[in-house]
Amino acid sequence: MRLRKVKDADLKLEENTKYFIANPNEFKGKWNKVFNNDNPIHIEVGCGKGKFILELAKRNPDINYIAIEKYDSVLLRVSEKLLEDEYEYNNLKITILDAKEISEFFGEEEVSRIYLNFSDPWPKNHHAKRRLTSKIFLDQYRTILTKDGEIHQKTDNRGLFEYSLESFNENGWKLSNISLDLHKDLEKYPFNITTEFEEKWSPNGPIYRLEARK
Amino acid sequence: MRLRKVKDADLKLEENTKYFIANPNEFKGKWNKVFNNDNPIHIEVGCGKGKFILELAKRNPDINYIAIEKYDSVLLRVSEKLLEDEYEYNNLKITILDAKEISEFFGEEEVSRIYLNFSDPWPKNHHAKRRLTSKIFLDQYRTILTKDGEIHQKTDNRGLFEYSLESFNENGWKLSNISLDLHKDLEKYPFNITTEFEEKWSPNGPIYRLEARK
Repeated sequence: MRLRKVKDADLKLEENTKYFIANPNEFKGKWNKVFNNDNPIHIEVGCGKGKFILELAKRNPDINYIAIEKYDSVLLRVSEKLLEDEYEYNNLKITILDAKEISEFFGEEEVSRIYLNFSDPWPKNHHAKRRLTSKIFLDQYRTILTKDGEIHQKTDNRGLFEYSLESFNENGWKLSNISLDLHKDLEKYPFNITTEFEEKWSPNGPIYRLEARK
Repeated sequence: MRLRKVKDADLKLEENTKYFIANPNEFKGKWNKVFNNDNPIHIEVGCGKGKFILELAKRNPDINYIAIEKYDSVLLRVSEKLLEDEYEYNNLKITILDAKEISEFFGEEEVSRIYLNFSDPWPKNHHAKRRLTSKIFLDQYRTILTKDGEIHQKTDNRGLFEYSLESFNENGWKLSNISLDLHKDLEKYPFNITTEFEEKWSPNGPIYRLEARK
C-alpha cells in the first residue's frame, strides 16, 4: 500500500496503549497472555487501512486477531480508526514488524491462520524475493502455523497470483479453494470480507484467491 | 468437443492406413517402430479438429506426434483433413483410445509430453472424476511420461482450471509457467499455437495455461 510518511507516526502509535503492541518480540510463544485467553490466533500480514481485519474481529469474537504492518505510517491509520470506533475490540491487536522475520515474533505453531490481502506485487523479476509468498516468507509461515493452519491469499494482481501458485506448489504446500474470479464465486465464499482495495479495484478485473496448508 | 455422430466413422478411419493406427495396444513400448526413429513422442489427448497438433507436427519434424481421441466421429475429421493436406506428415499418427486407460497403450516413460487443450470441463461435481486432470488420469500420465516429461494444459474454462491446479498440486506434480491470461502473455509464450476453439472463444475471456512435471 502506498502512503506518504507521517511525521512521528511511531510516537503516535505508542500512545495507543489499548491496541498497539510496541514490543512484539516479548510475546513470542505467549500471545495468549496478551488476550488473556487460549483462542486461536489469526494474523493479517500487511493490513493496509484495516477494514478487513476490523470486520473479521467484530464477526468472530472467539478468535484473536493481530494486524501486522511493516510501515508505521500505514498502521497509524488503523490505530486512529480503532480509537475512533465505538466498538471495543477485545480480540484485536496491531503491531509493527517485518514479515521476513515473523518467526522471531511468534512461537512454533502459535498461529492458526495467516491472511495475505492484496500484497505488494513487486512485479520486477529481481524483486521476486520480496513478494510475501516467496520461499523466504513461506518458510517463516511454516514455522509459526499450527499443523492444520491455513494461509488465505487474495489479490487482483495476476502476476503475483501466478507466482504464488507456483511458489506454494514448489515449496510443498497444499492448495485448495482456488478461485480465479472470486466475485463471481461469492455463493461459494459467502464469508468473503472485502478490503478497501478490493472494493475499489474489483470492477477492473478478477480477484484471485487461494488457501494453502503446510 | 461436441459433434454429431458420423455413420461408419470407424470403418472410414480404417481406410486411412497412412495416418490412422487401428490397433494402438500393439505398440505399447515400441511406438518408435511406428515412426522408424527414436525421436521424442508428444501426444495430444483430445485433439478436436486437429489444427493444433497438425501445426506442431509441421513445425517440429524431429518430434513424433500422436493425436488421441475417444470418439471416432471426432477423429474422422482430423483424418480427412490429413488426407486432403498436400503436406506429408511423416511424424504424425492418429488413434482412438480412452485416456483413462492410456497406460495400456504406452510403455513406462515412453512419452515426453502430453497436451491437454480445452478438455471437456465436466462442470458437475459428481462428474469430477471424468475431467482429464483427475487423479485417475494423472496416475496414468505419470506412468507413461519420461522423468522430465511435461503436461501442457490450456483451457478457457475457469472451473476446470481451478480444479486442475488443485489436482496437480494434490497429486504431487510440479507446476510452472502458469498463465491466467495467456493471450496477454504472448511475449512470454511466443510458441503458442492456437486451437480452433481458442480462436473462437478467447475474445470472451482469459485462456488459462500451465505446465506440470511429475
